[in-house]
Amino acid sequence: MRDIYLEDIPLDEARARLLNAANPQPLPGESVPLSEALGRVTAEPIFAAISSPHYHSSAMDGYAVQAQATTGATETRPLRLALGTQAQPVNTGDPLPAGTNAVIMIEDVQQVADDAIEIRAPVVPYQHVRLMGEDMVATELVLPANHRIRPVDLGAMAGCGHAQASVRRRPRVIIIPTGSELIAPTERPAPGQIVEYNSLMLRAQVIESGGAADVTAIVPDDRDRLRTAIQAALAEQPDLLLVLSGSSAGSRDFTASIVRELGELLVHGVAVRPGHPVIIGAIGSVPLIGVPGYPVSAALTGELFVQPLLARWLGLDATVEDQPRTQAITTRKLTSPTGDDDFVRVTLARVGERLLAAPLNRGAGVITSLVRADGLALILRFSEGVDAGQAVEVRLYHSLRTIERTVAVVGSHDPMIDLLAQFLAVRYPGDRLTSAGVGSVGGLVALRRQEAHIAGSHLLDTETGEYNFSYVAKYLPGIAVRLITFAHREQGFYVQPGNPHGVHNFGDLPRVRFVNRQRGAGTRVLLDYELGQRGIAPESIAGYEREENTHLAVAAAVASGMADCGMGVRSGALALGLEFVAIGWERYDLVIPHAHLDHPGVQHVIALLDDAEFRAALGAQPGYDTRETGTIQLDT
Amino acid sequence: MRDIYLEDIPLDEARARLLNAANPQPLPGESVPLSEALGRVTAEPIFAAISSPHYHSSAMDGYAVQAQATTGATETRPLRLALGTQAQPVNTGDPLPAGTNAVIMIEDVQQVADDAIEIRAPVVPYQHVRLMGEDMVATELVLPANHRIRPVDLGAMAGCGHAQASVRRRPRVIIIPTGSELIAPTERPAPGQIVEYNSLMLRAQVIESGGAADVTAIVPDDRDRLRTAIQAALAEQPDLLLVLSGSSAGSRDFTASIVRELGELLVHGVAVRPGHPVIIGAIGSVPLIGVPGYPVSAALTGELFVQPLLARWLGLDATVEDQPRTQAITTRKLTSPTGDDDFVRVTLARVGERLLAAPLNRGAGVITSLVRADGLALILRFSEGVDAGQAVEVRLYHSLRTIERTVAVVGSHDPMIDLLAQFLAVRYPGDRLTSAGVGSVGGLVALRRQEAHIAGSHLLDTETGEYNFSYVAKYLPGIAVRLITFAHREQGFYVQPGNPHGVHNFGDLPRVRFVNRQRGAGTRVLLDYELGQRGIAPESIAGYEREENTHLAVAAAVASGMADCGMGVRSGALALGLEFVAIGWERYDLVIPHAHLDHPGVQHVIALLDDAEFRAALGAQPGYDTRETGTIQLDT
Repeated sequence: MRDIYLEDIPLDEARARLLNAANPQPLPGESVPLSEALGRVTAEPIFAAISSPHYHSSAMDGYAVQAQATTGATETRPLRLALGTQAQPVNTGDPLPAGTNAVIMIEDVQQVADDAIEIRAPVVPYQHVRLMGEDMVATELVLPANHRIRPVDLGAMAGCGHAQASVRRRPRVIIIPTGSELIAPTERPAPGQIVEYNSLMLRAQVIESGGAADVTAIVPDDRDRLRTAIQAALAEQPDLLLVLSGSSAGSRDFTASIVRELGELLVHGVAVRPGHPVIIGAIGSVPLIGVPGYPVSAALTGELFVQPLLARWLGLDATVEDQPRTQAITTRKLTSPTGDDDFVRVTLARVGERLLAAPLNRGAGVITSLVRADGLALILRFSEGVDAGQAVEVRLYHSLRTIERTVAVVGSHDPMIDLLAQFLAVRYPGDRLTSAGVGSVGGLVALRRQEAHIAGSHLLDTETGEYNFSYVAKYLPGIAVRLITFAHREQGFYVQPGNPHGVHNFGDLPRVRFVNRQRGAGTRVLLDYELGQRGIAPESIAGYEREENTHLAVAAAVASGMADCGMGVRSGALALGLEFVAIGWERYDLVIPHAHLDHPGVQHVIALLDDAEFRAALGAQPGYDTRETGTIQLDT
Repeated sequence: MRDIYLEDIPLDEARARLLNAANPQPLPGESVPLSEALGRVTAEPIFAAISSPHYHSSAMDGYAVQAQATTGATETRPLRLALGTQAQPVNTGDPLPAGTNAVIMIEDVQQVADDAIEIRAPVVPYQHVRLMGEDMVATELVLPANHRIRPVDLGAMAGCGHAQASVRRRPRVIIIPTGSELIAPTERPAPGQIVEYNSLMLRAQVIESGGAADVTAIVPDDRDRLRTAIQAALAEQPDLLLVLSGSSAGSRDFTASIVRELGELLVHGVAVRPGHPVIIGAIGSVPLIGVPGYPVSAALTGELFVQPLLARWLGLDATVEDQPRTQAITTRKLTSPTGDDDFVRVTLARVGERLLAAPLNRGAGVITSLVRADGLALILRFSEGVDAGQAVEVRLYHSLRTIERTVAVVGSHDPMIDLLAQFLAVRYPGDRLTSAGVGSVGGLVALRRQEAHIAGSHLLDTETGEYNFSYVAKYLPGIAVRLITFAHREQGFYVQPGNPHGVHNFGDLPRVRFVNRQRGAGTRVLLDYELGQRGIAPESIAGYEREENTHLAVAAAVASGMADCGMGVRSGALALGLEFVAIGWERYDLVIPHAHLDHPGVQHVIALLDDAEFRAALGAQPGYDTRETGTIQLDT
């Protein structure tokens, strides 16, 4: 009965219950030497212990004088001052000698005798004098409490007489990974085993937020052992306990039940995607968060629950809501399952005038969607979602400057676009290339919609035997474009090692379980053309209807035994240790609208196609030929 | 002769010479465990070593089946599947058993016998299946080179089979502080001694930028000893050597001459303020930067020269130019000495619709101007400067969000405004209060110009004996304001301990050297009123014309012996150990235009005036009375 009120709690309510249970007051201070205080947070206001400067000092190299004694000096009637009595030599930083109140720069003085100088203009009191307390006066507030210490703050603290700083103790977090299927990253996983890395991510999030984290050994799915591990962790009096669920319901359920036994279960499931099965509880005074096993859920739980709590303990006011945001135009319709706030990972790029948000894979298991994300778009629960072409608010992971320097490549997926991205990042630091595989036709359509700068395309015109020209004319009518060859690529069949089903040509396909590419992919066009030429009906091929979006996904289907054969470029077979049955070579071009030719990143991409080192690296890949790489095939 | 071409080099040219000499190629990689890789920079692209998932796995708890075998199941005609053969129980993450290609969620199944289940709908192939490589396929690019590693990146690397990462070696910097007048922060300085903290700041800047820094002992102004120290540092083969000049010309000149002797001097003076006497050279293959002694110059040299160089070594493209920027309206005219790029520190606040930039003290010795700065406005060399009310570009040190939450207080300076700032930061994390002392009248004028949210005022109407009302009517005509009392304060004379000149009342002032407050300050109004009442001519008071802008500056002038007497609130005397001769009590009000009453920070300030803890802290200060604190004196 009670569980009904614990499940599917809205995000704000769940966070409120956590903060209420944790009651996160700023932690007490500890004294550290200034050399260790960078990045720590002041626990108390810092008042000046001494003034700075702590005496009136000369601001120049020259002579200290009494200003009143210089009256009447002119160019034509210089005034003579006796050294040692009326004028005293001082260097910058020297205290003003008693009886003086101004400094004359050495350049403005003539030494006329061993014991005398001449000046040609009077000076006003306090000229070239740094007055005591000019920077800080004793007792003055220099830094408030709850301030993250920067390099200049260290200088100011030292300058006003402090050698130590009172900084907030780091909140201490103990992380318990659970799940019998989990192994450490140093081990090689067998089927059914999963590399446990959520603890690595959560620990890093804690450190990034100014906390300290200890990770225990992995606890298998055994209620008693998990209970023992939780009690052992509590004995160390952490500020926060994180129990990282494995992927199965078992480890989640044990956590909730143990929290209920030892303390209070406050939330069991939050209405947010990804991240649903979050558990929140308190055992004694220690708050506990049960973190879901799917990595995207785990990372977002860290951002939404753990990091804001640490910020409170440090006296900082940083929640995920405080990240910089921007408005962007979504390239696809985004909806949210009713009742859940949905955090959609997006990549961002400026194409022409518009800042575009392209949604990434929404699976909670796809950690690369977070790695590749430039930000999170929040689709609110009970909202009707956002249509393609509408504005959506994005919480930024990267600076807008990085995003402005991003080249967006779409279209046919080629693994060597990664190689291009890597060269771009190294050769032009700050430049960035994002790529999305949507097939060759999809890429041209994206260019027409102004959703990308460059499309990769290898579309065979089955009537002329030419690549790409007629498709560009069809899909980009009236748009001036340049077609530059990226590479020639070898196409073929992916089969298991030893080619157990004896696939040698298209006529063999009806005998095997096939995995296909999606409609609009260049490889699909090639397949359909070849089947048509040979009069082979697609319906005769088992698996023809199963579509994958990339060469590697096709290769993965074959490697796992889900299919016996697929079609793609040679590099896909190499990636997964498959055998490759060559069919022939095709030309893969980059299609670039003239409107984007002056984008610096696009220019760098074009320059790389003529770069000897990049061409050598590309040509060294099996299945790639660079004989026409960089050649302009068309410029309309 | 040669020096002519080394002096006053423009900033861009000086930086080009440094980069040319340092030739900063990205440093080689070193392998570290993932647990130590947070924040480091990838030295090589990271490719997936294994696919993730590395097998087809169940995405749900339920039963694995062959999809084709479920055809025909309906609500009315459920299909029975034999357990163990046709349906096999799986947990989330389990590998799909051989012969199955879909998973039915446990919720959608009825167990009808020990060895059988029933389903009421068919399933499609791959339903609730995470396909091998869904996240990453072996050989796929996961992270490019030159990427700063974040928590999610650690997860992705571990997930695709890496336990170590190849990250760029940290650039190693040796810092040599020089100057006979310098002492460590742990020592208490005597007059003429200066606490050396530039090494603390520069080291922190190096660490912040991902480098490692060693600081040597302070080297006195002795050419041979400095030469020995430089050679000893070179023997350790650092990537960069920083020689921090003391304040005198001596230490600067030694550095330049030693660089000339041992290597090549490339720059001796850069046309940038603050920061003029920057030295750049190279000894063998090691670049050397001679950092000016004034702390603001030193910190800016770190930002403009050191940090960009470190970024290059790490393969990152971060220079000070890449910081986020904003446009703001300057509140004062800003000009630059011809020939120098001038970096003016400013505070920022949003007042009404406008984002305002208020310039801070431009002295190179005022480190607090950097501590308090929200950003830098660059006034270009040879430009005509920027008039008050014009837009200026500001490189941001803080997020715009912090700035949006800033309450700008101007007007009469009271040290207890610091106390208010401190309570505000603690009680309302994220709120911030900046204050600028421009005198009571100056504060009212700033309110009229919409340059601040709140003005502090203690202006005595000498005809009515009332405080502030008539001045508000005069300086803020037609503007609805609320006047709330901050505190009553005790005014008096600051004199040296023991009151050696016997100052007891205004009649004693003509006998002593006085230091005054600026025109428009409430204390100045009070002084002029009292002098007029007594028929004392201002000209009869020595030092009447010497004006300081704050109570503490007046107190400092007396404490240092520059003056015998000044006038101010009691707290100023306490700050510097002066004797205080009480004159009487005055009312200090906060003046708040109605237009700013809905600003959340302003509301928090008003709430604090009624906060028992704040009132107690304020009332405990000698010279403050809180009997009317929080009382609304006027609401027009």
